[in-house]
Amino acid sequence: MANRIITISREFGSGGRTIGRQTAERLGIPCYDAELIQKIAGESGLASEYIREKEEHSVHANPFVNIFMSDRSNGGFSMQDYLWSVQRQVICEIADKESCVIVGRCADYILKDRQDLLTAFIHADIEKRADRVEQIYGEVDDMPVLKRVKDKDKRRKTYHRFYTDTEWGVAQNYDICLDSGTLGIETCVDILCGLYARQA
Amino acid sequence: MANRIITISREFGSGGRTIGRQTAERLGIPCYDAELIQKIAGESGLASEYIREKEEHSVHANPFVNIFMSDRSNGGFSMQDYLWSVQRQVICEIADKESCVIVGRCADYILKDRQDLLTAFIHADIEKRADRVEQIYGEVDDMPVLKRVKDKDKRRKTYHRFYTDTEWGVAQNYDICLDSGTLGIETCVDILCGLYARQA
Repeated sequence: MANRIITISREFGSGGRTIGRQTAERLGIPCYDAELIQKIAGESGLASEYIREKEEHSVHANPFVNIFMSDRSNGGFSMQDYLWSVQRQVICEIADKESCVIVGRCADYILKDRQDLLTAFIHADIEKRADRVEQIYGEVDDMPVLKRVKDKDKRRKTYHRFYTDTEWGVAQNYDICLDSGTLGIETCVDILCGLYARQA
Repeated sequence: MANRIITISREFGSGGRTIGRQTAERLGIPCYDAELIQKIAGESGLASEYIREKEEHSVHANPFVNIFMSDRSNGGFSMQDYLWSVQRQVICEIADKESCVIVGRCADYILKDRQDLLTAFIHADIEKRADRVEQIYGEVDDMPVLKRVKDKDKRRKTYHRFYTDTEWGVAQNYDICLDSGTLGIETCVDILCGLYARQA
């Protein structure tokens, strides 16, 4: 079956979002990234800014804190769990409706049983990512850029493990993994466009 | 700088060797796989069969056995260490001499400081690999195919960690990782050929 949905998981600063946008643009299909957050906001009744922050900040890098400090320890569900459930529903609805690129939000895991899925992981050397982050976002919160990149990676990795029980960045979990630092953004876009709609 | 040397690390039964051969053939450059073993045999004075076996069988899956049961515990070097040293030398000489594809033998790690290197990791779902192994090699040693595939993976992983101190199959350690089971052998060859000689 042809690949119709492309999911992009990415290390912070790897250009994964740009690769997603450019791939979608060239293929003439929508790219869900900020749009996904708006949709989740619409469904959940929560503010977009709150949702954006929750992806990376409500799961603590230390898994014990997640278990013992959250209301999960009483067998309950946290706000994060509610968001996960809405996110899951929104992503499934989008994938049912149309061909698209979805960036982040564990869409690879949520859609894993679909036959028309191409899952990509974009990564790059940490120094290259820190340079890119500095160029695009500049210094934020007085935190050195390298520390900020490492911190984001850790949070995304922990969030992914917490909700999917699979390891983020392990090659076996994706159809294709690309080093955007050595291959370049354009090459990554070329490869993903080439794979779209291709029969396996 | 253009990619001139392609190294292929691969899970057992993923078709990585076939992908390497077909890529080299299409590019008109040599592929070192069995040829590498012959060269190492020539340099080391050991039999090809012995070298082929040693890659995967002299490192035990349990790292403690490697440390305490080998002559390394006395600060000495094992036959495996001698082979590693010859292998390293042979691979560096090949890469200095000509453009080529090199399959396995930790060539990605040995050549990691070169600027003209493209490192690929080929993997596939374990059931698909077991099917492929059964088709190509049939049953061997009365060991069920699935168990044989898992055993080989474990040994390659341990060998890689033992000599390179890096994790085998972690996306960040390669320029590109491809699932040959979902993408297909031909697509993997197309992508690698497309990347050869491309400027990053």
